[in-house]
Parts: sequence; structure tokens; C-alpha cells
Amino acid sequence: MKINNILFVSPLNQEIQNLIEKYKLDKQFHYLTEDELRDEDLDWADAFVSFKTRASYDYSKVKWVHSLGAGVDSFLFKKKWNDHVILTRTICSFGERISEYCLSYILKDLQYHDQFFHQKAEKDWRPITPKMLNESKVMIYGTGEIGQKIAQVLSFFGVEVYGVSWSGKQKEFLKKVYTVDTHFALLNEMNYLINTLPLTEKTEHLFNKGIFSDLWSVGFINVGRGESVNELDLLQALDTGHVRFAVLDVFQAEPLPQVNPLWEHPNTMMTPHISAVTTAKEAVECFVDTLENIEKNRPLPNKVDVRKGF
Amino acid sequence: MKINNILFVSPLNQEIQNLIEKYKLDKQFHYLTEDELRDEDLDWADAFVSFKTRASYDYSKVKWVHSLGAGVDSFLFKKKWNDHVILTRTICSFGERISEYCLSYILKDLQYHDQFFHQKAEKDWRPITPKMLNESKVMIYGTGEIGQKIAQVLSFFGVEVYGVSWSGKQKEFLKKVYTVDTHFALLNEMNYLINTLPLTEKTEHLFNKGIFSDLWSVGFINVGRGESVNELDLLQALDTGHVRFAVLDVFQAEPLPQVNPLWEHPNTMMTPHISAVTTAKEAVECFVDTLENIEKNRPLPNKVDVRKGF
Repeated sequence: MKINNILFVSPLNQEIQNLIEKYKLDKQFHYLTEDELRDEDLDWADAFVSFKTRASYDYSKVKWVHSLGAGVDSFLFKKKWNDHVILTRTICSFGERISEYCLSYILKDLQYHDQFFHQKAEKDWRPITPKMLNESKVMIYGTGEIGQKIAQVLSFFGVEVYGVSWSGKQKEFLKKVYTVDTHFALLNEMNYLINTLPLTEKTEHLFNKGIFSDLWSVGFINVGRGESVNELDLLQALDTGHVRFAVLDVFQAEPLPQVNPLWEHPNTMMTPHISAVTTAKEAVECFVDTLENIEKNRPLPNKVDVRKGF
Repeated sequence: MKINNILFVSPLNQEIQNLIEKYKLDKQFHYLTEDELRDEDLDWADAFVSFKTRASYDYSKVKWVHSLGAGVDSFLFKKKWNDHVILTRTICSFGERISEYCLSYILKDLQYHDQFFHQKAEKDWRPITPKMLNESKVMIYGTGEIGQKIAQVLSFFGVEVYGVSWSGKQKEFLKKVYTVDTHFALLNEMNYLINTLPLTEKTEHLFNKGIFSDLWSVGFINVGRGESVNELDLLQALDTGHVRFAVLDVFQAEPLPQVNPLWEHPNTMMTPHISAVTTAKEAVECFVDTLENIEKNRPLPNKVDVRKGF
């Protein structure tokens, strides 16, 4: 497939343009802000590269849409997609980034950072023995690129890592992969739950009291999508202790409104959707690789299965 | 060498006794507190097992002294040792424990835990991109069991890890090992310094303004011994920003006196000597292994080189 006219719409445009120019690609590029975008730009473009689409435009005019993020719910969730348009997504160091994010909060817990912080304030010399990673059991929802990478990192330290996926297909670094239907029996043994699932119709509000009520004093980490969590059920689980603490990087509404009670709950840790940031450099590398694969009709490892939604 | 009478003196006595009894060893055991210990107990014993010795007793009466901790400065530092007495030390999961301790504080820094904690309190949605481990450079002082394990863990994440030792002998997982004399040139490139060195006459006050003044905005982690640090120089380096923060698990005086200014410095994190705890289970396993090696005249991988002090 031949791609000549490429349209970038993102807050990273300036950085991306500087990097793209170094490749000296024989292509036409337009760089627009979201506000500048018009239907005629899509008429012109063969390829559209962005973090999202807006319902008001007809993206089926282009041959190829490339997502600058790893998640493609902003392209597909509760939207129609024209099967003739190829959808690809950025795959880069998201797995490494999210692994370090998750590990940092698990270690913060096992090493009693908060307790020692309070003891310091009180000049209180009272030894507590940190727990070790190899005494922990973790359930990872989603066994794709990102879930796999987290599993690899945790299992390096001897963590007993389990997976949950739709197929239940066994994967490396996971002691066992369950389907959503079969995983409930194991929940009460878990120390930490990590959600990496994409937002699809199947994962919307997947984390509700059905799962939370089977947990016992668990650390819940959400690096997937906010819409996968029923926030009211999570707040209740935090109050009852089924969830001991929650580390939340994604929310149903972002930026999170000031009135949202998650801000004030003592047992939440909140980060503003930063666990897997796309840097301009990595975005461009992935885009250029994908462009070359498309033009040479090679397999696309980062192609989205539009029906599955990831 | 035959060992019949074994004397344990430690706060772990009760737990150790319970575990030792399961081995059904054909030996005589005495378990005493420090206060109960008398010279005639040492006359009776072939082996003395403890965390430390006291100057008031003559330990050269026994054939073998076994340290329940990894560090043996409480047996050797500024003390005389009779070369006929074998000194061994406990080697168990100290490396794993200390690695997780160090990693937890490096990740806390790279992932901006404190900043996000403050932003949560202010309901402030302001993205900051965490730094990745593979952008960091770490200098580890001491390339023995523990330093090596930390290096292995950090290099798994792509950290550039350097070592400092007396010999400068190259070791696995370390990009390069320097001697103390030759390592200064690299100091201003480092993001984190980790001290794992034992306390000996060479390491006493090694970390003084000579090292601190060559640093730039470094995170300093001490899991070795408190006496290796000149605390006044450290406080000054914290004030001037040469040391951005210090994570201290060991101190010149322990428990740390309430008047010590390290308690109140805003850029210290303090833990009460818990980064490498000897559990009774691991202590007994290591003791039983060492006993068997001694009685069968086999090599002792945990034998202390009394002249070197570790």
C-alpha cells in the first residue's frame, strides 16, 4: 500500500515534526492541532496519526489510522469503524514504564515506606521487617505486551504471578492464566491486583463488587483504563478493607474532577495518567517502522484487531 | 574439626532453639541472654553463635565463632582476634533483601511518589513523566555478595552500574569496578550512590566531604555501616544539594539518639536497621550448613578474612 500524504494531529506535533524531518522521508506531511482539523484535511490525507478521533469527522476517508497511544478505545469504544481502514497502535517502552510504575508501588508497600515516614516524624526507632517480593502473589488482568512485561519483571523477583485473559491461553512468566469466569476462586489468595486491560465493551466496569468482594486486603493497581472500574464499588471496597489501597493512574473522567471522592480517600494513591507516556522519540520510531511495514506489505505486529478492540 | 558444645547468645534464642531441635543434631546446646553470659560458659563451649562479642570476655577459648549477621565489625572492628578461632558469618537472603530495599527508594524517586502525594492532597492534575531506571547511573561501594546482588537487580532494568572495591577487580553485572582512589572522576555522573561496605579501619568515615563534594544532586543510600559516614559532612552535603536525599538504614549510634539532626532533616529517609534482617529460619539454615562444613573439613564460603575484616 502506498502512503503519500500524512496528517499528524497531536500535542506532540512540534517535537514529532523535528524528529520526522531527520528521516528525510519522501512524503507530504501536515501537522495540525485538533482545533484546526477540518474534513478536507482528511480528504487530503492517506494516513491520520493521533491519540484519538472525534465523532464529527469521517476517518474512513484515509487508508491508515495510527494511534500515538497504546490504548485505542478513543478510536473504537462505542464507535463504528470502517474495516477498510487499517488501525495500528504505538508499541514501545510502555511495558517497561508500566512495570516500573507497578513495582514502585508494590515495593513502597512491602518496604513500609509510609510507616517509616511517620516513625521518622516521631523519631521513633521501631524495627519492622520489610516483606519480600517472593512472598507475594499478584494477579495481572491482561496478558498482552504490557501484562507480559509486568509478569516478567515480577517473576524475576520470585513473585507468584497469575494472569487473566479472555482466552485463558497460557503465557510465559505467568504461573497460570485464567479466564475471567474461572479466576474468582483464586482472588482471596492475592496480595495485589493489576489491571492492564484495554477498554472494550467486555471490560467496561469489569472491576465491580463482583470482584472486590472476593478480595481480602489487596493492593489494587489500575494502569488500564478508568472505565473498567466501577468507582463507587471501589470506594466501598476501600472502606470495607477488601481493597487495602488503590493506586490509580486512569479514571473514568480525566482530568479527574475536583469533586470526585477518590481524591480524598486516605487509601488511594493517584497519578495523572503518566504510567505509560508516549515520548515523541518513541512515537516517531514506531510510526516510521509501521509506515515502512505498510508500504512493503509486511506483517504489522501492532495492527489492532478492530473487532476485539485491542 | 569436632564441635560438641554450642552456645547461642541472641535475642532470637527461642525461635532458634525451636528450629534447631527439628534437626535432631547430636550436640549439646546452651541458649543464654547477653546478661546471663559468663566466662565459664565460654570455657564450656566449642562454638559461640551471636550477633556480637563483648570486650569483657575471652572468646579465644572457643574453636569457632559464628556471626548471626552479615557484618562482623562487632567482632573485629578495633578489637583483637585470635587467629586460631575460626570466624564465619551468616550469608542468606541479605542480598535479595537489600536489593529490594534500595530499588524501592530509587523507584520512589524516579516515579515521583512524593510529588504525586502532594498533588493528590491539592487535587492537582498535573502530569509529570516518571524517569526510567535505564536512564540512571549507580555507583555501588562494595562488590561482595550484597553489592553483586544489587548490581544484578539494577542491571536487569538497564541501569548503568559501577562498583568500587579495594582491589578494583572486575565483577559480573558491573560495567566497571574502580578502586577508591580511581573512582572520583566518575562521581559527578552518578544519580545514586549505594554503600554496602563493611566497617573496617579503611571504611571508617570513608563518606566524607572528599566524596560528597564531587557529587551533584545524588541520592545516597547507606545499607552498610553508619560509621562509614561522617554525619556532619553528610548533613552539609544535604544542605548544599550535593546530596539531594539520603536513605539511611544504619547509623553511627543505634538506636539513633533523639538529638541527632538527621531525624529532622527534610531530605533524609530513615529506617531502623531493617534492610537486611536475619530471620531465625535463615540463621539456623546457615548455621547448620556451616557446622557440617566445619566438621567435615570442607571449604567455608562464609569464612571471614579476619585481616580484611569481612
